[in-house]
Amino acid sequence: MSPSPTPTTPRPPLRVALAGIGVVGGGVVRLLEANRELIARRAGRPIEIVALSARDRHKDRGVDLSAYRWEDDMGALVAADDIDVVVEMVGGADGPALTLARQALGAGKALVTANKAMIAHHGIDLARLAEEKDTPLKYEAAVAGGIPVIKAIREGASANEIARVYGILNGTCNYILTLMEREGASFADALAAAQAEGYAEADPTFDVDGVDAAHKLSILAALCFGTRLDIGAVAATGIRDLIAADIREAEALGHRVRLIGMAERDPAKGGALYQHVQPCLVPADHPLAYVPGALNAVVAEGNFVGRLFFEGAGAGAGPTASAIVADIIDIARDEYGPAFAMPVSALDEAPVADPGARVGKHYVRLIVEDRIGVLAEIATAMRDAGVSIESFIQRGDEAGGGVLIALVTHEGPARAIHAALAALAASDHVVGEPMHMPILAL
Amino acid sequence: MSPSPTPTTPRPPLRVALAGIGVVGGGVVRLLEANRELIARRAGRPIEIVALSARDRHKDRGVDLSAYRWEDDMGALVAADDIDVVVEMVGGADGPALTLARQALGAGKALVTANKAMIAHHGIDLARLAEEKDTPLKYEAAVAGGIPVIKAIREGASANEIARVYGILNGTCNYILTLMEREGASFADALAAAQAEGYAEADPTFDVDGVDAAHKLSILAALCFGTRLDIGAVAATGIRDLIAADIREAEALGHRVRLIGMAERDPAKGGALYQHVQPCLVPADHPLAYVPGALNAVVAEGNFVGRLFFEGAGAGAGPTASAIVADIIDIARDEYGPAFAMPVSALDEAPVADPGARVGKHYVRLIVEDRIGVLAEIATAMRDAGVSIESFIQRGDEAGGGVLIALVTHEGPARAIHAALAALAASDHVVGEPMHMPILAL
Repeated sequence: MSPSPTPTTPRPPLRVALAGIGVVGGGVVRLLEANRELIARRAGRPIEIVALSARDRHKDRGVDLSAYRWEDDMGALVAADDIDVVVEMVGGADGPALTLARQALGAGKALVTANKAMIAHHGIDLARLAEEKDTPLKYEAAVAGGIPVIKAIREGASANEIARVYGILNGTCNYILTLMEREGASFADALAAAQAEGYAEADPTFDVDGVDAAHKLSILAALCFGTRLDIGAVAATGIRDLIAADIREAEALGHRVRLIGMAERDPAKGGALYQHVQPCLVPADHPLAYVPGALNAVVAEGNFVGRLFFEGAGAGAGPTASAIVADIIDIARDEYGPAFAMPVSALDEAPVADPGARVGKHYVRLIVEDRIGVLAEIATAMRDAGVSIESFIQRGDEAGGGVLIALVTHEGPARAIHAALAALAASDHVVGEPMHMPILAL
Repeated sequence: MSPSPTPTTPRPPLRVALAGIGVVGGGVVRLLEANRELIARRAGRPIEIVALSARDRHKDRGVDLSAYRWEDDMGALVAADDIDVVVEMVGGADGPALTLARQALGAGKALVTANKAMIAHHGIDLARLAEEKDTPLKYEAAVAGGIPVIKAIREGASANEIARVYGILNGTCNYILTLMEREGASFADALAAAQAEGYAEADPTFDVDGVDAAHKLSILAALCFGTRLDIGAVAATGIRDLIAADIREAEALGHRVRLIGMAERDPAKGGALYQHVQPCLVPADHPLAYVPGALNAVVAEGNFVGRLFFEGAGAGAGPTASAIVADIIDIARDEYGPAFAMPVSALDEAPVADPGARVGKHYVRLIVEDRIGVLAEIATAMRDAGVSIESFIQRGDEAGGGVLIALVTHEGPARAIHAALAALAASDHVVGEPMHMPILAL
């Protein structure tokens, strides 16, 4: 009855090939070597690396790879009949990573990947291929690094209808925001510090513009809601437009600023799916407000379990390797099933929710010229758009000489805020772009 | 290759019987009814309740059970050949619950249980029986209620050697401690409030003396360390001896008081296993310090993943039902394996660590008479026992008329603290029992 080994029937080793040996690949090798015996006990069989492949064999990876077979051509991993599992760590949504993934699954091999971009763009196609070939496709490392959140949602929360899923899905942004919070730093200075510390890349676009978090959010949404992955439907707003004063005013209002990816399905609107990555004000009594530095955290709210909160390292060689090897152990144990918790044929096509219709409180910040009538202009624009103001702060002498206005609205649709700010952005007295952020509802 | 259903082969329903229909049992019925279709999509087959059994058929459980077959005798569930899974919610370490569990597994049925006492006392025997019969034994609901922490550790963190596992495992105690913290209440008043709110039982012994948390800790330890469950080796100190001043002084020292169950294995001492439930001072920058009310939270520290933190509802009908049904879905999917992550034969017998040898900082609080020489007596007792003091607070005019002394030690073995306090407890000038708590090391 059980697909797992009984103690009396020793099972052959699971034979693994690693493709793309960078920081993460080196971590996987180190992990499988360091925890070798423990993993064999837990998996019910040894897990053996039988081959490696990457572009440059001679690059120094800080780990001795000379004991392993090397293939210059990744295709050789797919062709070899002594390989059960291909671990794809090449990266990129398309190109060699996707070719390898398709070939490996097509050949009936198990595929483990850390590639969030590839899963976000091609996850459904790959899952269908895995089903056709009756072979596992696993991607725990693609979302929130070392936190086993794919498993926690796919299996741990499987009894629940999930109302919404959200979290801090990008450690680089959280590191930058934490630095702005602690040191009153500007975005530019905090980014530079994050780059110097190795937490941000030289080209930080993918992280700070929310693209990376959008990939992860789309995967979580598909799993939570049983919907087809739709990366094109995820709106992403990054953190570049935040100024130090936003962090400060948020704190004065009892909140912290975090880049939040959130997905929510609205049963009242035909199951329309809202997916947005954007900076938000998180109330100080919500656990996301305390997630520091480069950590990640995910919240899932189920109709029976209530709020589940998971926190841990979202990136780095060790945590990512931990997630990859957990997937390999599941395969070794024969404990796996459809990639998105149900067969692709059972997934819904969710209509895209109208983000303008989303109701909530908002934080708005403007820098205005210090002259008579500006306040009236703001109040009028808000009133005309139907925005009701709950609290209002005005501070003179901001850097740049303007006056800072920070306000919190009552609950209302996002489109009213957009309309008010569009009107104000056209005003001669408003300096630069107004900033607005939703306040996370508890 | 995959044990899971392919979309082309519909599978028969999984047939479930529920034994012991109280608050949790009612929750399981409601959940399986409310989320019926979603669960069938996720599980790859319908999950059907085919029979119920409890002592009193006519008790009002707030849910209509008339549609289900009723068995007055739980043994009938085991005998019936139209039942695949028995869910044990009878409670109690021994007696009818254990009889049912043994009979169900013995008959080759799958067993799902929420019974932490039974697993803590008989988990190894039951796991062995499940292996012999090649049938699943699952107990997600036994630890930390709705948080899928058994799964997160058994599978999510499976690639890691776990250095230590610890957390807030009893919601009643955390509710009481949170109340003492927020309102400056005494233990007795906070307990009475918890009882009035339904968070504590009329006889609160199991909760406030740490017995319930000890059961859960022993289960986590076995899973994390691959050791045989040994409930007899778990030391438990409850929260009855805490006074409002302890919470206040802890806060003044930058800490919060939480009842922490911690297990740690010391590779330097033959893998000796330390398992202790006790109130601890948690630093304000540790996520456990922010776990409010009746929530539970668990931390696992792995050698590659680093610190994982899981928080959620630790009790209640909905969260417990969520965990029970997640186990049932795993069984429906054929995604399960050995109960303690590896066969019983692969589990170690861990030697019991000497708790006195455990090194750390400690908080000590004494109430003393307000007279000359008392301070010298304390300082001398500490010095003689080899305890070095890091900080010291003396406050006059405590309730009861004594003087309160609160101090934090430098790092040292617990046995030195015990020796110093034993000497001081014998003093005529010390009023009542001295209190000491370890400070959680980050």
